Amino acid sequence: MEGQPHPYVPRDLQLPGYVPVSLSQSTILSVYGVASVLVVSLVWILSGRSRRIAKIDRLLMCWWAFTGLTHIILEGYFVFSPEFYKDKSSNYLAEVWKEYSKGDSRYAARDAGIVTVEGITAVIEGPASLLAVYAIATGKSYSYILQFAVSLGQLYGDAVYFITSFLEGDNFAASPLYYYAYYVGANSSWVVIPLLIAIRCWKKICAAFHNQGQKKTKSR
Amino acid sequence: MEGQPHPYVPRDLQLPGYVPVSLSQSTILSVYGVASVLVVSLVWILSGRSRRIAKIDRLLMCWWAFTGLTHIILEGYFVFSPEFYKDKSSNYLAEVWKEYSKGDSRYAARDAGIVTVEGITAVIEGPASLLAVYAIATGKSYSYILQFAVSLGQLYGDAVYFITSFLEGDNFAASPLYYYAYYVGANSSWVVIPLLIAIRCWKKICAAFHNQGQKKTKSR
Repeated sequence: MEGQPHPYVPRDLQLPGYVPVSLSQSTILSVYGVASVLVVSLVWILSGRSRRIAKIDRLLMCWWAFTGLTHIILEGYFVFSPEFYKDKSSNYLAEVWKEYSKGDSRYAARDAGIVTVEGITAVIEGPASLLAVYAIATGKSYSYILQFAVSLGQLYGDAVYFITSFLEGDNFAASPLYYYAYYVGANSSWVVIPLLIAIRCWKKICAAFHNQGQKKTKSR
Repeated sequence: MEGQPHPYVPRDLQLPGYVPVSLSQSTILSVYGVASVLVVSLVWILSGRSRRIAKIDRLLMCWWAFTGLTHIILEGYFVFSPEFYKDKSSNYLAEVWKEYSKGDSRYAARDAGIVTVEGITAVIEGPASLLAVYAIATGKSYSYILQFAVSLGQLYGDAVYFITSFLEGDNFAASPLYYYAYYVGANSSWVVIPLLIAIRCWKKICAAFHNQGQKKTKSR
């Protein structure tokens, strides 16, 4: 159970039984990229069949399908697989987290903060994201508040993710390349897009109450 | 700098320079209790001067003033005072956290997850709670979405707080009494009340969009 030497930082991190990543970086990224493009294309095409759905809403449906499946499949696997770094079967999902841990070794180390944030993301925000696809498609009255709630949850998760790392010395990446590509780069979409969606929903919700207020004033 | 023996669990927690709590438990709780009753009474009386504000909204204003000041003053002190456990001056705020650490020693130990959640709570949710008092009083269109956002942030913070402790063995209380009184009891209000407010705001926001939808249908 000694395991092979791991590539992660800090170097003294103990990972007994560690089995190195066997798929190449380009294979791991390509599978995720192609799968994501397929999901987004499918949602874009299907949502285009209804004339009623505006382009911005179709784009949002693509985002929610993509982020929801990422949360449930990728992050869900991580949450419930504490020993992924021992996997010998080249299981794609284990390979993803072995590779990503080069950018943030807290994943391999099973840091409690990471597991907590990923758990909330996978179990609550993942299904809620897919519900958002349905809510937008069918014009539910809870569409904006649901999108706002999930986006705010993603932003809170980002804050916990980055601030805990900062407080603990910000030294969990195997190299500056992995730091910027994985830790900063891969997470940046989940900062920028939820922020834009949260702002949009906030404005839409304010406008709904503003209209309601005007209606009440008029009907007096 | 050896410091005196501390009462916290785990017993091997290193707190060099620790100075024991000097105020009694009843003094610490009374000051917080009396100050809170004063704040709530003041907001209740002032908000009662306007006939326009419904009782439920006045109650919410009391909650937001109380929770906002707790976040800013108590939790704000903790976030920016990493060495509170060394305080010799019987500073009330240091005493609060020396006492509360008996229920959760991660505060004295400066756990990164705790500091992060408390930081977000003190710096963002505290001022946002006071803004909610103003928003309710003046009937702003952003009143419900603001209250929803802060409540959801409080609930996310609770989740991180309790789940990280569970994952790390749930052994941070000096005794079962402190565990149930401080760790469970003191936090339970910040689970139940934000949950109720979030549900109420969700319903109000859905109703606003429902009305807007009906209005559009009628005007066709």
